[in-house]
Amino acid sequence: MKKEDCIFCKIANGQIPSKTIYEDEEFRVILDLGPATKGHALILPKEHAKDLYELPEETASRVLLLAKEMAGRMAEKLHCDGLNLVQNNGEAAGQTVLHFHLHLIPRYLNDGLDMKWTHGEPSQEELEAVCELLTKE
Amino acid sequence: MKKEDCIFCKIANGQIPSKTIYEDEEFRVILDLGPATKGHALILPKEHAKDLYELPEETASRVLLLAKEMAGRMAEKLHCDGLNLVQNNGEAAGQTVLHFHLHLIPRYLNDGLDMKWTHGEPSQEELEAVCELLTKE
Repeated sequence: MKKEDCIFCKIANGQIPSKTIYEDEEFRVILDLGPATKGHALILPKEHAKDLYELPEETASRVLLLAKEMAGRMAEKLHCDGLNLVQNNGEAAGQTVLHFHLHLIPRYLNDGLDMKWTHGEPSQEELEAVCELLTKE
Repeated sequence: MKKEDCIFCKIANGQIPSKTIYEDEEFRVILDLGPATKGHALILPKEHAKDLYELPEETASRVLLLAKEMAGRMAEKLHCDGLNLVQNNGEAAGQTVLHFHLHLIPRYLNDGLDMKWTHGEPSQEELEAVCELLTKE
């Protein structure tokens, strides 16, 4: 995909209107139009990066700070009971728009959203093998 | 819960052994013992913070940098096809251990893991109301 065709670039840079809840030079935070819960928002860097792998380090260092600020605002204004951060990289991971975005999903008691996964039961040997693989240079 | 009773404090600080794939002064990255997929890991700050709300800004600014480094290592060593980052805050959000942790879940084509959520269909008025609430000081 060409960068010029990226819908999140256009939204982040204001060429396409959005429900913006925060904006600075580097980021725009918008409401998700198909929210998992009330207040579901997305942090978008204005500079195109496909995913975490492509995200510049300087930008990466600011994302969670901004998420923390938004989290506080959501707790105060929406009185939510919790918050999920979700960030998908690659189509195999469910990434649908190939421009880095961090989901902020406010949670409410008994909101019915199921974010659980099935827990595997690897053997000690299997875990050790993965650990070695990921530890060695 | 008292901080002294926090299992992730004990793991992060090495009092309880773990499958560690990375460690520095501030963080430990361990394999999840009940992994959603092969290589599922957790980034733990050594200093106790319950969640994103409590996480010091300096620590927050480093978490995604470390996630990015681990993501590269996972892609190289595990040949995964994608990666989910998930971070839960509060029991209503599915947080089971009340010490900040970021899940890194490598994804593989057809791994069967379902991380999707149902998309709501709020009206323009409903979205606008949430947007105003979250925008105003």
